[in-house]
Amino acid sequence: MTAWTARELADWSAPHLGRVEDALSRWVGVDSPAQLGDAMRYAVLGGGKRLRPLLVLAAGEAVGGSAAAALRAACATELIHAYSLVHDDLPSMDNDVLRRGKPTVHVQFGEASALLAGDALQALAFELLTPDDEPEVTPRMQATLCRLLARAAGSQGMAGGQAIDLASVGVMLDEARLREMHRLKTGALLQGSVEMGVACAATDVASGAAEALRGYGAALGLAFQVVDDILDVTADSQTLGKTAGKDAAADKPTYVSLLGLDGARAEAAALLERSLAALEGSGLDDTRALRALAHMVVDRDR
Amino acid sequence: MTAWTARELADWSAPHLGRVEDALSRWVGVDSPAQLGDAMRYAVLGGGKRLRPLLVLAAGEAVGGSAAAALRAACATELIHAYSLVHDDLPSMDNDVLRRGKPTVHVQFGEASALLAGDALQALAFELLTPDDEPEVTPRMQATLCRLLARAAGSQGMAGGQAIDLASVGVMLDEARLREMHRLKTGALLQGSVEMGVACAATDVASGAAEALRGYGAALGLAFQVVDDILDVTADSQTLGKTAGKDAAADKPTYVSLLGLDGARAEAAALLERSLAALEGSGLDDTRALRALAHMVVDRDR
Repeated sequence: MTAWTARELADWSAPHLGRVEDALSRWVGVDSPAQLGDAMRYAVLGGGKRLRPLLVLAAGEAVGGSAAAALRAACATELIHAYSLVHDDLPSMDNDVLRRGKPTVHVQFGEASALLAGDALQALAFELLTPDDEPEVTPRMQATLCRLLARAAGSQGMAGGQAIDLASVGVMLDEARLREMHRLKTGALLQGSVEMGVACAATDVASGAAEALRGYGAALGLAFQVVDDILDVTADSQTLGKTAGKDAAADKPTYVSLLGLDGARAEAAALLERSLAALEGSGLDDTRALRALAHMVVDRDR
Repeated sequence: MTAWTARELADWSAPHLGRVEDALSRWVGVDSPAQLGDAMRYAVLGGGKRLRPLLVLAAGEAVGGSAAAALRAACATELIHAYSLVHDDLPSMDNDVLRRGKPTVHVQFGEASALLAGDALQALAFELLTPDDEPEVTPRMQATLCRLLARAAGSQGMAGGQAIDLASVGVMLDEARLREMHRLKTGALLQGSVEMGVACAATDVASGAAEALRGYGAALGLAFQVVDDILDVTADSQTLGKTAGKDAAADKPTYVSLLGLDGARAEAAALLERSLAALEGSGLDDTRALRALAHMVVDRDR
């Protein structure tokens, strides 16, 4: 099975991204009190790489899962990601004013609205996962998707990683501890996205395949953060769409500060290989989209 | 069926409260990064009337529901309530320093930790609802419980009500709009607690009974807020365990400012009657705990 070119990935992604944008636009901030709905839509729509939704959809297709369930799961992961950015940007956290090239939510709508919008986005993620009018998304899928998302987002996932991050400013973490922080802060939701795609299968997925996809997700999650750390020092703010160099400025530990730039690049390459090897061993027929997404994560410039 | 005395309610509540406290202590902030786990436990343990858990448990018993599911649902509603208080108290919201007679979470742990603790508590609520090792809590129950909780907590529930509240400082709301705000801000989670108890039934609950319990929950939710508004002007801070008179000071619309003190008291009494009438019409065998909880909500002094 030959690997996809970037063009083939783009051809695969385009219709999926279209469905995700359309669904988010229909589901987010509609029938909400005016200012809250506006802030929620501002936080979610019209920006972002939609990496997590693409991982859900690619994993869902690899296991022949329900497209309706995967679309809901894809949107739910993006809502959790979006809420975490809104809260992360608040003055009491990173105090950032620029995100995806636009003023952050609290700059645009005020701190209280940003706080509430983030809270409401988290709740909406679980609401999207539990429709009462889509029989194809079975109660078992709904329950499993909620379980995976809650674990990925919570104190032993994303929120836990952010707490370690918060406690580690100015502290020299060793590699094991840095890895643990990122496994939780960024990795848990990326890995969770892959697992949620798997959970959209109508029948049980072979345990070897599920395990392989978990390994893929874990390696990809770490690779994503290593590349983020590299871009923080090598890219400019305009390309990133957010403030570059801020981790270094905040004296936050990063893979680059720990391993050096060349060491971090070697680490990213090794993690890419590990994620691809996991796919090879999965026994699944078609993992080309997942392969291409792993390459995209490591080769991106923003 | 004779109504319970306060003593009979206390005798019913005591073992249930014990189980809830024990479960929360086992489930909240354990194995979380240190500071985050401490902040989560501080926000949840050792305080609060646990009204929402008691409503879940009473409704669960009224329909003969799974005790294991009801205990999880009870704790989940309390986590949502607790997180909303943590975020509500933040400087960008109500900027309150006292809660249940103790320093608020951000005073004790800092703003960033309070923000993250609230976020993690919301995720944990959904994690508690989706165990993978309790067959008695079926996938269908898990999915329904997550759906009800997400709707009660989100932009068309609690968070939506808070957004209206935020936008209405210094604005004269008419009674319909004030009712709508409270139906969402406080009522949605109280009503949701009753519905979650019903969702713990192993078999379908008669639609008339389920509808009656929804009516009970709706009336109780509004009554709770009317009494809150009354206590805000009649009780002192020490009895309340939080700052008294702050709604009036903040020029927030309340039932008392709209209806006067006597009018608000009459409204509370009418809502109590409506909630009791709904129980009468439910056709359920034993609704004494639910009856007694409605009385407790209206007769409380804090």
